[in-house]
Amino acid sequence: MNAKMNHRLQAYFERNQNHARLLITCLDQPGIVAAVSKFLFDRHANIVQSDQYSTDPEGGQFFMRVAFDVPDIKHDENLREDFKTISEKFDMDWRISFADELKRVAIFVSQQEHCLLELLWQLQSGDLTAEVPMVISNHPDHRELVESFNIPFYHIPVTKDTKKEAEAEQLALLKDKVDVIVLARYMQILSPEFVSQHPGKIINIHHSFLPAFVGAKPYERAYERGVKLIGATSHYVTNDLDEGPIIEQDIHRVNHHHRVDDLKRIGGQIERSVLARAVGWHLEDRIISHNNKTVVF
Amino acid sequence: MNAKMNHRLQAYFERNQNHARLLITCLDQPGIVAAVSKFLFDRHANIVQSDQYSTDPEGGQFFMRVAFDVPDIKHDENLREDFKTISEKFDMDWRISFADELKRVAIFVSQQEHCLLELLWQLQSGDLTAEVPMVISNHPDHRELVESFNIPFYHIPVTKDTKKEAEAEQLALLKDKVDVIVLARYMQILSPEFVSQHPGKIINIHHSFLPAFVGAKPYERAYERGVKLIGATSHYVTNDLDEGPIIEQDIHRVNHHHRVDDLKRIGGQIERSVLARAVGWHLEDRIISHNNKTVVF
Amino acid sequence: MNAKMNHRLQAYFERNQNHARLLITCLDQPGIVAAVSKFLFDRHANIVQSDQYSTDPEGGQFFMRVAFDVPDIKHDENLREDFKTISEKFDMDWRISFADELKRVAIFVSQQEHCLLELLWQLQSGDLTAEVPMVISNHPDHRELVESFNIPFYHIPVTKDTKKEAEAEQLALLKDKVDVIVLARYMQILSPEFVSQHPGKIINIHHSFLPAFVGAKPYERAYERGVKLIGATSHYVTNDLDEGPIIEQDIHRVNHHHRVDDLKRIGGQIERSVLARAVGWHLEDRIISHNNKTVVF
Amino acid sequence: MNAKMNHRLQAYFERNQNHARLLITCLDQPGIVAAVSKFLFDRHANIVQSDQYSTDPEGGQFFMRVAFDVPDIKHDENLREDFKTISEKFDMDWRISFADELKRVAIFVSQQEHCLLELLWQLQSGDLTAEVPMVISNHPDHRELVESFNIPFYHIPVTKDTKKEAEAEQLALLKDKVDVIVLARYMQILSPEFVSQHPGKIINIHHSFLPAFVGAKPYERAYERGVKLIGATSHYVTNDLDEGPIIEQDIHRVNHHHRVDDLKRIGGQIERSVLARAVGWHLEDRIISHNNKTVVF
Repeated sequence: MNAKMNHRLQAYFERNQNHARLLITCLDQPGIVAAVSKFLFDRHANIVQSDQYSTDPEGGQFFMRVAFDVPDIKHDENLREDFKTISEKFDMDWRISFADELKRVAIFVSQQEHCLLELLWQLQSGDLTAEVPMVISNHPDHRELVESFNIPFYHIPVTKDTKKEAEAEQLALLKDKVDVIVLARYMQILSPEFVSQHPGKIINIHHSFLPAFVGAKPYERAYERGVKLIGATSHYVTNDLDEGPIIEQDIHRVNHHHRVDDLKRIGGQIERSVLARAVGWHLEDRIISHNNKTVVF
Repeated sequence: MNAKMNHRLQAYFERNQNHARLLITCLDQPGIVAAVSKFLFDRHANIVQSDQYSTDPEGGQFFMRVAFDVPDIKHDENLREDFKTISEKFDMDWRISFADELKRVAIFVSQQEHCLLELLWQLQSGDLTAEVPMVISNHPDHRELVESFNIPFYHIPVTKDTKKEAEAEQLALLKDKVDVIVLARYMQILSPEFVSQHPGKIINIHHSFLPAFVGAKPYERAYERGVKLIGATSHYVTNDLDEGPIIEQDIHRVNHHHRVDDLKRIGGQIERSVLARAVGWHLEDRIISHNNKTVVF
Repeated sequence: MNAKMNHRLQAYFERNQNHARLLITCLDQPGIVAAVSKFLFDRHANIVQSDQYSTDPEGGQFFMRVAFDVPDIKHDENLREDFKTISEKFDMDWRISFADELKRVAIFVSQQEHCLLELLWQLQSGDLTAEVPMVISNHPDHRELVESFNIPFYHIPVTKDTKKEAEAEQLALLKDKVDVIVLARYMQILSPEFVSQHPGKIINIHHSFLPAFVGAKPYERAYERGVKLIGATSHYVTNDLDEGPIIEQDIHRVNHHHRVDDLKRIGGQIERSVLARAVGWHLEDRIISHNNKTVVF
Repeated sequence: MNAKMNHRLQAYFERNQNHARLLITCLDQPGIVAAVSKFLFDRHANIVQSDQYSTDPEGGQFFMRVAFDVPDIKHDENLREDFKTISEKFDMDWRISFADELKRVAIFVSQQEHCLLELLWQLQSGDLTAEVPMVISNHPDHRELVESFNIPFYHIPVTKDTKKEAEAEQLALLKDKVDVIVLARYMQILSPEFVSQHPGKIINIHHSFLPAFVGAKPYERAYERGVKLIGATSHYVTNDLDEGPIIEQDIHRVNHHHRVDDLKRIGGQIERSVLARAVGWHLEDRIISHNNKTVVF
């Protein structure tokens, strides 16, 4: 973290010291909202934003996010404990996050820097708020850039033969130190073993509007196919390549004038804004994954 | 209503016979959501969608929309009556609408037909659901079109000298027969007296992205100014010309090739989709106006 | 053609009586533009718009479209003949179209009417200009609608067993009567024999942003995949299903609230505007296909 | 210029050493394209891209841009001289630019850094290609950032009383050193004297979709008005505040959830991409201004 980041964080902490978010998934049934509302009311919580969604009010899946302020929330040691009465009654999958307990993000990057730069920059400007304990790359190129933000940079080369060792090294670095891993154009496929260590916590940016152009070289294939729109997709990583839950997508119009290099240049702008939005929503606890899809509140 | 419309309505009624929407505006204070949730829970309501928004959790304005199903809702004669206990406690501005009590829409139109046609067409396809007891126009041109939908058409010419009488005639036709008035490119300015008879119930489409190009001839002025985007705005009508609460806006990219006629043609496509979206949201009770702005849930 | 259409056509003919378009494809080489320009200059042509594009100035493919006015163009019987001196020198694939020789469009439709309606409506409003000698459908539903526009409607049922005969019947109707075939949500796959009779002259609308969701039920699959954008694609039909040259695409943002029915409703709006744009560009001779891609000037 | 910039420049120079652009404005009349094409053909030029536009083929204004390669262009000392035969015949306003003669850009900035950063970053990545001989700011904040790119930074404070002296100092620094001035959220209004020294060479970014919210505090006013779209506009600076020729605009959708701070944050993303596109088009000689509008080829 550099000085500007520190300054912005200070303001963030003051603004958010009593702010929390409750996320719930369970089977839909009458009374959930009433119970949750009463629980928060009894705690003198001010509800700042509340969103809910049900795939079907009769027997469907229910999702809820409540952002709220509770005075002196940090001295209310029993908030999570007490909620269990409710969560157990409705058999909820749930969590409460405190806004001032910053999520710790590891950024993985290869040679292309635009997504990394966008994230660092938005972290510095305060558009994103997180800790970044490390950047890991299979190339040495961005050490100077990363260290200029006072962020540790680890160069871990990956070849076909050393992939297993490289992942072991990465996992050792990550262990207990990070909450989210962002693949900012990291051009290596993670092994199932790696993914299983961080389930639902790895965010990737794919350079096409999935499911079009799954796999390698999407801009080249978009050019070949003569599409009139190119796009980018941010999604959680699962063991099915480019098949994980989609968080955000966007597109830009192109035409016959644009060659592959132009598609890459234009696409790079889409990639960085799509990835930054997805990461921001994850950091603000806005995303619930279910059945390989996301609800984004 | 023609045969297709009737067929689609039948399906709508079956789907929505127990469906209602509760809309609330009041000062924000703890306990609102808890009280509303408990009220609906006690009535065995299934909440289909719930949205809320507060301008400020401490002393701000609170808005809420709940869409819910209640079995045999029509025999629950006391639903509205009983809610008064809650509404009075929180000093709410509120209403409950039953989805199968169709809103009655009067469409006003002048010579340009594209917005009128889009509305009639979406009503026929079931994308919009409403009754249309009348179309009123200051020109005779669209009688055949409108009557082909089995909708009564009234030609009421308006000149500078006859405006007062014309509006009196319009108001007499509308009296107790309509819930909403849609100005589908109706090129007359309504008098304050007219507007005051239907407060918050008149929806207009303006052919620019307001507040740019308030007033007459926006496409000509957009062309003169050399803008690279043209747009359209749907808003509720107040006595300040083009200054009422904005419901929806959209834009389309243009360039130096486009002459005024092209802007009008492209703009016409934006106008009709923007107006249809705004009318649809109004019909589904998704809009709350407050302080000359809209909350669209 | 109904009365409104006739009126608009009259104005179109007057405006375009001396208007023509020259389209060229050939290998790029120096001197093409100089030769074409001189040819038009010697004919006293006013160039209204000129676009050109080269995949590579050294040995690439060259594309050009010139829209121009020539006084008394219809008495210049030798325009096309004389151009052969140039076209042969550069080995051009070329054509000259006169704007007042309307293209004849056959519309194929199944049960969903929205794309058909949009085309008929834009033809009536003058946003599209063409003759429509026939609408062909495998369902009887839209006879009344189509005939209300004074357009002949042919109901040719298609089953697995009768497909061959049905296509023979269609081809007989089309023979020498149409220049373009528009598949306005025609839910039958045309046989290679049919396609080969109208090469590069069949325009389809596919209800996804190709190449995502090639094939059947794209909205269901988009819902399953949890995409955040849905789209539509208009393309020329080839014998590779959904693989022909893309003319135009567009998208709309969706979220977890939208069910399959919502995707279909929203998608329908995209489909009709995308198809209408593609058809319009074809009618104005703006599209050149090459190597399974389109250049749209 | 730092090392990365240098590396990318090297590649640019190699790619563009024989590349030039010809821009023409004149009254439309037959023979222009024929004459220009013949001129380039006689020089053995490969035309890479050619665009032309006429406000009216009979007596309107004609605009043309030709991008072309000429072998050994730098030894063709007479290219510009020889073109005068043609330019004088048609009374053209014209210029020929060589792509490897980089434009020199001065960036003016105040406290907000996002537009400055985007420009520096795109210059570094090669998405923009220019020299940046200086950054001038009325605040000292960004010295370190700018100097880290090896670009000279000048802090020239501006107060109401010292504005005249400050501008004199700026003009002295700029004199003969820059071709373009980019106001990257420079929050000072330039005097008519300053503007008249660099006519048509000052590019501004305004944080609204002009002509909506001309002047100060556009996001605050957009929030007050309750618009559903916010935007940004890049334009050439004239002496009429926010009234100069518009180069590029873009928008983003917002809703009732977004407060003024959110509008500023979202708007900042639009500002930086709109400004970068506008600057890029200027650097590639794609823009012709005429009658307070731009033609962007």
